[in-house]
Amino acid sequence: MKNIKMIIEYDGSRYLGWQRLGDSDKTIQGKLESVISEMVGSPTEVIGSGRTDAGTHARGQVANFKTNVNMNSSEMHKYINHYLPQDIVVKEIEEVNDRFHSRYNVKGKKYIYYVWNHWIPSPFDRKYSYYYAEKLDIELMNKAARALIGTHDFIGFSSVKKTNKSTTRTIENISIVQEGNMLKFIFIGEGFLYNMIRIIMGTLLEIGSGQKDTSYIDQIFEGKSRSIAGITVPAQGLFLEEVYY
Amino acid sequence: MKNIKMIIEYDGSRYLGWQRLGDSDKTIQGKLESVISEMVGSPTEVIGSGRTDAGTHARGQVANFKTNVNMNSSEMHKYINHYLPQDIVVKEIEEVNDRFHSRYNVKGKKYIYYVWNHWIPSPFDRKYSYYYAEKLDIELMNKAARALIGTHDFIGFSSVKKTNKSTTRTIENISIVQEGNMLKFIFIGEGFLYNMIRIIMGTLLEIGSGQKDTSYIDQIFEGKSRSIAGITVPAQGLFLEEVYY
Repeated sequence: MKNIKMIIEYDGSRYLGWQRLGDSDKTIQGKLESVISEMVGSPTEVIGSGRTDAGTHARGQVANFKTNVNMNSSEMHKYINHYLPQDIVVKEIEEVNDRFHSRYNVKGKKYIYYVWNHWIPSPFDRKYSYYYAEKLDIELMNKAARALIGTHDFIGFSSVKKTNKSTTRTIENISIVQEGNMLKFIFIGEGFLYNMIRIIMGTLLEIGSGQKDTSYIDQIFEGKSRSIAGITVPAQGLFLEEVYY
Repeated sequence: MKNIKMIIEYDGSRYLGWQRLGDSDKTIQGKLESVISEMVGSPTEVIGSGRTDAGTHARGQVANFKTNVNMNSSEMHKYINHYLPQDIVVKEIEEVNDRFHSRYNVKGKKYIYYVWNHWIPSPFDRKYSYYYAEKLDIELMNKAARALIGTHDFIGFSSVKKTNKSTTRTIENISIVQEGNMLKFIFIGEGFLYNMIRIIMGTLLEIGSGQKDTSYIDQIFEGKSRSIAGITVPAQGLFLEEVYY
């Protein structure tokens, strides 16, 4: 059987997230599986690197599927993009080693969270960023970010319900890049808990706007409770940028 | 009376264009007039620099209105942006000389037409550019563009119906900038006829893709008939970038 790896870009605005639900019309995985199953002539599972939430976007989601279909990668690429809706695109496709698994083999991920930081909103960026009008101190947020980097129990920064699984994760880096009124918060790590980046963002914005000081991060680590950290900022600002193998 | 000048940005996707129609909910002018009339307490006309078509966007549309309301510019700015829908934003507002008129005083305009030139479309740029998969020769399009610059009768590049008004216009410059897969066609001129930029674009793309050669421009100038030139490309790629006074 061929093992086909894809790099996928999507505008998550219309979708309930990556993971297939009953109604395949409203998830990214469901859309891909319905087009690919039609192409190969039999029900085909598409395995993603991980879930993305409802409304979250991707520029570099990775997924794979196995098939015996008699088509080369280029033919599959054209077929899939032809039948996908306009807000989901397969950027790259290639046949890979049989043992490649999109989820089990992940070494790390890069996410970017976009904040539009000006009181005058942008009509063109409104669906792809979080509008935050209050003035932000980038130095303070950088200082808070440094306290988050490394290996920690991030339970206080997560909406995880059950705690029988480990909530320890390693953040390799968080960097903040300013481009005009847009702030890009770039997260690189082995893996992230459910809602972790969006809760970290809510927390960093409270620090950057002066509502909390940088010791807030330690209070959340020590408290180990979701109730202490900042809000879960909206999914529309979040992009899965790249998956590392 | 105060004369208030505004610089306006809008995502034209949802609208029937700039100019007010019966149903004010579907035009940019109508939306602005309803918010501003409410603010000042009496019906107020908003005069734009000119119309933009249904689906066309703007980063720098200019409009003015006259009022006796007892508010300063900053108060008006906050009020208007608070009540406008998210896809229309007043970027700047200032009180100007009583004689300033957004339409009569126009000296020139800058438009940009965006073409996404790769067979793999972009989910994020799809509403703000024209997807054109065929390979384009930028040098050939530059050569054709140079034949368009200057003062000409552009009747063959317009959907204008009546010809009792002059169809002679002056294009100061057309430049083509490549940014990755995106091509920006930048038009600067005194004024443009109805659909002129979109028809010029359809024509340049036929030349750039090798379907026509650069003498096509002269044929259209000589033929003086809309039927000779290329298609009218979609409005979604067109941005009114700046109005000069």
